[in-house]
Amino acid sequence: MELIWIVPVSGFVAVLYALWLAWDVLRRDAGTPEMQNVSAMIFEGAMAFLRRQYVTIAILALVTAAIITLIVGGVSEGVKEIISEETGDIVEIKYGEKVVSHWEEGLLTGIAFLVGAAASALAGYIGMYISVRSNSRAASAATRSLSEAITVSLRGGAVSGFLVVALSLLGVSGIFLVYSEVLGNPNSIAPFLIVGFGFGASFVALFAQLGGGIYTKAADVGADLVGKVEAGIPEDDPRNAAVIADLVGDNVGDCAGRGADLFESMSAENIGAMILGVVIYSVTGNLEWIVFPLVLRSFGILATMAGLTSVPFFARRQSSGDPMSPLNYGYYIVSILSVIGLFIATRVMLGDAWHWFFFCGLVGIGTGIAFVYITQYYTSGAWRPVREIADASRTGPATNIITGTAVGLETTAATAITIGFALVASFVLGSNADIPNVPGFSSGVFGTAVATMGMLMSAAYILSMDTFGPITDNAGGITEMAGAPESARHITDSLDTVGNTTKALTKGYAVASAGLAAFLLFSAYLDKVKERLDIPLTESLPIDLSSVDVFVGGLLGVMLVFLFSSLAIRAVGTTAGKIIEEVRRQFREDPGIMAGTSRPDYGRAVDITARAALRQMVAPGLLAVGLPVTVGLIFRFARDGDVTVAGVTYPDSSGWLAVAGVLMIGTIGGIILATFFNNVGGAWDNAKKYIEAGMLQVPSENPGAMTTLGKGTDAHKAAVVGDTVGDPYKDTAGPSLHVLVKLLSTVTLVLAPLFIA
Amino acid sequence: MELIWIVPVSGFVAVLYALWLAWDVLRRDAGTPEMQNVSAMIFEGAMAFLRRQYVTIAILALVTAAIITLIVGGVSEGVKEIISEETGDIVEIKYGEKVVSHWEEGLLTGIAFLVGAAASALAGYIGMYISVRSNSRAASAATRSLSEAITVSLRGGAVSGFLVVALSLLGVSGIFLVYSEVLGNPNSIAPFLIVGFGFGASFVALFAQLGGGIYTKAADVGADLVGKVEAGIPEDDPRNAAVIADLVGDNVGDCAGRGADLFESMSAENIGAMILGVVIYSVTGNLEWIVFPLVLRSFGILATMAGLTSVPFFARRQSSGDPMSPLNYGYYIVSILSVIGLFIATRVMLGDAWHWFFFCGLVGIGTGIAFVYITQYYTSGAWRPVREIADASRTGPATNIITGTAVGLETTAATAITIGFALVASFVLGSNADIPNVPGFSSGVFGTAVATMGMLMSAAYILSMDTFGPITDNAGGITEMAGAPESARHITDSLDTVGNTTKALTKGYAVASAGLAAFLLFSAYLDKVKERLDIPLTESLPIDLSSVDVFVGGLLGVMLVFLFSSLAIRAVGTTAGKIIEEVRRQFREDPGIMAGTSRPDYGRAVDITARAALRQMVAPGLLAVGLPVTVGLIFRFARDGDVTVAGVTYPDSSGWLAVAGVLMIGTIGGIILATFFNNVGGAWDNAKKYIEAGMLQVPSENPGAMTTLGKGTDAHKAAVVGDTVGDPYKDTAGPSLHVLVKLLSTVTLVLAPLFIA
Repeated sequence: MELIWIVPVSGFVAVLYALWLAWDVLRRDAGTPEMQNVSAMIFEGAMAFLRRQYVTIAILALVTAAIITLIVGGVSEGVKEIISEETGDIVEIKYGEKVVSHWEEGLLTGIAFLVGAAASALAGYIGMYISVRSNSRAASAATRSLSEAITVSLRGGAVSGFLVVALSLLGVSGIFLVYSEVLGNPNSIAPFLIVGFGFGASFVALFAQLGGGIYTKAADVGADLVGKVEAGIPEDDPRNAAVIADLVGDNVGDCAGRGADLFESMSAENIGAMILGVVIYSVTGNLEWIVFPLVLRSFGILATMAGLTSVPFFARRQSSGDPMSPLNYGYYIVSILSVIGLFIATRVMLGDAWHWFFFCGLVGIGTGIAFVYITQYYTSGAWRPVREIADASRTGPATNIITGTAVGLETTAATAITIGFALVASFVLGSNADIPNVPGFSSGVFGTAVATMGMLMSAAYILSMDTFGPITDNAGGITEMAGAPESARHITDSLDTVGNTTKALTKGYAVASAGLAAFLLFSAYLDKVKERLDIPLTESLPIDLSSVDVFVGGLLGVMLVFLFSSLAIRAVGTTAGKIIEEVRRQFREDPGIMAGTSRPDYGRAVDITARAALRQMVAPGLLAVGLPVTVGLIFRFARDGDVTVAGVTYPDSSGWLAVAGVLMIGTIGGIILATFFNNVGGAWDNAKKYIEAGMLQVPSENPGAMTTLGKGTDAHKAAVVGDTVGDPYKDTAGPSLHVLVKLLSTVTLVLAPLFIA
Repeated sequence: MELIWIVPVSGFVAVLYALWLAWDVLRRDAGTPEMQNVSAMIFEGAMAFLRRQYVTIAILALVTAAIITLIVGGVSEGVKEIISEETGDIVEIKYGEKVVSHWEEGLLTGIAFLVGAAASALAGYIGMYISVRSNSRAASAATRSLSEAITVSLRGGAVSGFLVVALSLLGVSGIFLVYSEVLGNPNSIAPFLIVGFGFGASFVALFAQLGGGIYTKAADVGADLVGKVEAGIPEDDPRNAAVIADLVGDNVGDCAGRGADLFESMSAENIGAMILGVVIYSVTGNLEWIVFPLVLRSFGILATMAGLTSVPFFARRQSSGDPMSPLNYGYYIVSILSVIGLFIATRVMLGDAWHWFFFCGLVGIGTGIAFVYITQYYTSGAWRPVREIADASRTGPATNIITGTAVGLETTAATAITIGFALVASFVLGSNADIPNVPGFSSGVFGTAVATMGMLMSAAYILSMDTFGPITDNAGGITEMAGAPESARHITDSLDTVGNTTKALTKGYAVASAGLAAFLLFSAYLDKVKERLDIPLTESLPIDLSSVDVFVGGLLGVMLVFLFSSLAIRAVGTTAGKIIEEVRRQFREDPGIMAGTSRPDYGRAVDITARAALRQMVAPGLLAVGLPVTVGLIFRFARDGDVTVAGVTYPDSSGWLAVAGVLMIGTIGGIILATFFNNVGGAWDNAKKYIEAGMLQVPSENPGAMTTLGKGTDAHKAAVVGDTVGDPYKDTAGPSLHVLVKLLSTVTLVLAPLFIA
């Protein structure tokens, strides 16, 4: 356990670093009074939304925690110790005495749920607090230089990034420490007891992402439709009552929503990886196998700190060029340092077979980099897909949508092949490790866990780049509304374009991590089922796809991701309708608004959107939690399929089999559908930008000359339709699907006893 | 074998009935010379397309047949007899002597492939011949009465419907007879030898549906964009050079394409059901279990004949009302007679357990009826979904698309739940049958096969209604172009609306049959694998979803259906571009066309579209066949996962495991995605029609009064965008996905030996 000290150290260092970043951003010039005024309105709206959202989530979470405690406590039979028994040369994993009673298990799970939920909420709240305090500072910096604007935006975003990662690391390691050392439970069962933490995190993430995603896109679509289309006023025009709601939306969707998303990714995948380490720990007796994921993440935090600190250096060196380059250089530094950290961690902790897992980690880091490039290819204007969509806009909105859909569907290929390759490669590498008495299957699955954790080493950096997006977007809106000089607007515009790319990258990264993690989380679910059924963890438990339970479960799982997306997309439409009505009402009742003599009531528009969005997030959220539970219960009681493991037949297994089908095949469907939504939305957005930048050219009437089809042309109008359609796809349905996929894992993991007869 | 005589009898009766229908349609008045002239152009274009398409398909099919023969002959080890052995009370299924050498097996499979392909092509050709001969007769009938127009259209369509069903029945039973009785192979292995027939049928179906689907929508979208949008002339205007191509498209897509689709459904599912019967036959020695599906289908044909004959009677009784009603009455008669036929067949053939399978069949018939209602709810103007989309059109094309997408995603729920329920119900009923020495699993899967065959009893009726669509659509175009009286146009319009509904119904029906059949076809694949590995057919062979091979296979399977859809949708765009260029060129080079003084060159437009569509169909077609094969080969050689059955471990199983994942999870993804595409397209289409019918009303400026937003308003324009987007979804991607799903089953079934080390 030589490296375990690095976990608390890096955790606290990360918190301190985040505090320093916050101090550094907040001490800077907050801009002109006009800028501060706009920023204050955004701050007020964002915080009001968050408060109201957290109250709703808190109520739902408390009820859910109570239900979990009752279900797990009432249904489970308590937890038995996992012991290894040597018979001659062979070590067998068996179950010993019951060490945790069923009510204790229920209570511990319920508490872990609340701790996870609270940590996630805290990270989201503080991160967003700083983010909305940074926007006017970024706007002010943009009046001075590009490099300062990059620094402010990135540091403001990094507060959120580091807090999310640090709180997840400290939370998981802290609750593990308490549940094992303090409460005296065996190390081998503590990972099973803390799964509630992951469920709590994904529960908050689902509602944060859904609520934020619905809010942001409803405000965006609503503001555009009622402002640009109906009233004919430009984007971010102060006469539009929805404009502040729109700027608030960027924060609550991209900053708070995505932060919660990645908080839960890291937490759930970390816990899943620890559960998979239990088998190897039970055989070898080395606790390293359980705590390894924590150590790897700690190295990732240190690597990210170094990389992030280097960005201003790169930004100063080329202050005139593309703002994306310094961010890319920083990412390379994070990647290189992560490889070094991975080397140290595997070499020191994982015994003779370390090099196999080192390669697994490399696969994970490589997958992260691959996704950065894949996403750029499909959503950036420089390449074929976006140009194809821009070109199709010449024949109107219908061909823009058709071509965009074809591009979006196509992008799933690169995603699936990359994830598939990474899974197979890390599984094969891991299963080659040949640890004595550990089945190749167990070390193979652990290999996929190492790949996932390797990929997530750079999570804080990716998340900082993501929160960079709403800050620059807000800064642009503030310069516009506060009447800042043209040059500042030019700088914020170039940052905004980069922000769009980094937001797309984060989504690709989140999908990839969900895909890689699917396998490990699914295996954790199976380990939990084995534990319940007293099947040795080293036995493989087949989930037979040719059984009607698994197949129909899978059919319903894929249906779930489609139906969930339907509800999320429709929620945007419904909420947008409310804000449109409100802006229309204000225009109608106070003609002074349009004339520019009176100020619209921004607060009311913010409020109405918030209330509608929060109401709309409940149905899809409950569907996500409710469907797997319902399927599990129906199959448990209506069917009696059985499963044979090592000659023993386990009857009445339909419940957990169907849930396995929902989980696993629903995950596949969710990953693919989320990829489609994210990429098609990004491509439409950038096709519009491509046309606005005057890059769509067609042969003109004069032979040899070219005509530019830019802003205001019919092609541009068609591209705006595509962009609007893509909004709820890429910012509501897609990101919510990542969370849904991981929520499926945690909800089934925690409620597994419910599905076992 | 008391009822087996009904198979040839009903087959030949069906052919005679089709001939009588053809004679009855062709003897009718072919309309005015103008009508005949337009019809002749459509006929010429359609036949030219079909000839060219069949040449392409024939070349591809011959090459594929040769490859199949070589692969199966070279890789397989021949076929062993399946024997049952009694040890005390227990009957075991074992493998005996090799009775078919590997080259003989390859040759028989290759020949079956060609026979299946040829039968499918023949059915498509003759059916379409009559269909395009019926259109001017339907137009002429429309000048006289609605009831005569219904009769002509339905009878013209029924020629195709009956030929498809009869040729499939005669083809499958004929080749089974030849391969068992004539060539002297045991009855237990003959079903395995004829799987090539199903592959041949699905091979032709894929290309027919793809080529036809691309053609029809490229012509439709192209004609609309260049005519209605650019030149500002109405739909079906004779000055538009693409108008004949558009009318040709209706035939090659809906008639030839869907005919091939259902031909292969029936053939592949019939053969799969026969394979599943082998287990029970081997135990009981009653050949009834193998030939039962043939008998059930024969009863279906007789029931359909009675139902179809009754339609003119209902049509005459209420000649003024909704043309859908007589079609519905006819369907009820088919359903009732099917239940009676099902009762007789199960009672006479299936021994003591007959009633369980009778209920399975009822589940299937009920599923068919349920899908008719589900499709109507989601795609017909009378209900909430379509009205919601129409309402969203008020705020422009973007909200029309967003709301439509939400509705489309939502429709997958009813589909998945209905299919899931039908699968579980028929499996449970079948596994309760308790046939001595037959495992519950085997009789359960046979139960799902009976449900599938029960549902398909009405296939000829559904297909007749489907082909009804293009005939009435063409009749409408002909009355327009030939300047027929207003009253005739009114009748063809009302028939056209019904045709849209029946086309949507057929797609729902095809999806449902694919879903129900998935399970039986997958089990047939496993039986084939067992046969290769010498695993008794009564053992269950787990396809473990938690193995990396199956999971990654599944990921790639779902990706396949998305990528395939991308290629299909993009093909429409590319091909539409070609026809648009051609029409523009004709307008430019001959100003007389627009003035109405010279006739555009319809033939050239037809020709260009055909050539482009056929070129575009090759890539997605090859992807569909190539991806499962590639995945199987890569996993076979790059991985070495194993499977344990009854204590015996089979190493090097990754190849066929990954293929199982592609097949099964790809099927789930395909069913859900096809449902989305079909329903969203249908709903958009009918939302446009809803607005055109003047049914979208909003409160007007005068309090209390309502304003109608009809044709020509912005809301209508927005709805037209949705309709255009939906075209390639519902008529190219969706229907091609049904075929893809079933092709996956047949290609893996035939090439299974390739994936087994």
